[in-house]
Amino acid sequence: MNFKVYLVASKIDKFYMEAIKEYEKRLSRYCKIQLIQIKNQSHLSKINQNRTYKILILSKGQQISSEELADKINSLAISGKSDIAFIIGAEKVAQEEILSISPMEMDLGLTATILFEQIYRSYRIINNEPYHK
Amino acid sequence: MNFKVYLVASKIDKFYMEAIKEYEKRLSRYCKIQLIQIKNQSHLSKINQNRTYKILILSKGQQISSEELADKINSLAISGKSDIAFIIGAEKVAQEEILSISPMEMDLGLTATILFEQIYRSYRIINNEPYHK
Repeated sequence: MNFKVYLVASKIDKFYMEAIKEYEKRLSRYCKIQLIQIKNQSHLSKINQNRTYKILILSKGQQISSEELADKINSLAISGKSDIAFIIGAEKVAQEEILSISPMEMDLGLTATILFEQIYRSYRIINNEPYHK
Repeated sequence: MNFKVYLVASKIDKFYMEAIKEYEKRLSRYCKIQLIQIKNQSHLSKINQNRTYKILILSKGQQISSEELADKINSLAISGKSDIAFIIGAEKVAQEEILSISPMEMDLGLTATILFEQIYRSYRIINNEPYHK
């Protein structure tokens, strides 16, 4: 699987960047994942529209549990959808689905950190491994 | 207001501690807040049972938005409940209510980071201030 996490934000706090780097490292044995910080939503048009499955993260989206996210990632992999884009910090963009981490509004760097942690957690669940580093 | 955030965890990642310290700093103009890391749930009995309003954070608790958390903090302040304990990483403890940040299971250091960010966001909402540092 090849994940790209697009974050529409002008600034990300240092501790969130460090958290994301740590999860990138932990995830490297399971998948490719990359944070792409963009200043402006218009840069999202660069996403390969045909091949990439796009998931928008919004507080008002469909809420799912960690197990449901793991199931979703597993199903996408099985159905041959290997390019997944998560989009954080945008409102109206072309997407295949809208998911919510929490009904709370959050700092975008924090939202990205949670998403990375949840993708890592998903791979631990998919591989039946206990949750630790 | 005087918040104590009890975190039942043996280890907290460094970047989460740094995030929490940053929010403690930002919150210092609004309230007293302190993270108390405990290794074992039994240490929770030290909480002053009579005066402290205890809120347990669980993924299966009642979900609230940032605005609802701000309302809750405001109502507690108005009703004279100035000692608030949030408890993260415990399951069955004496509490006044159970709140959820997300239906997702999360790293406990990350959960504490979100809670600090949300308390900071609450004070920005209560004081009609835009959200930034």
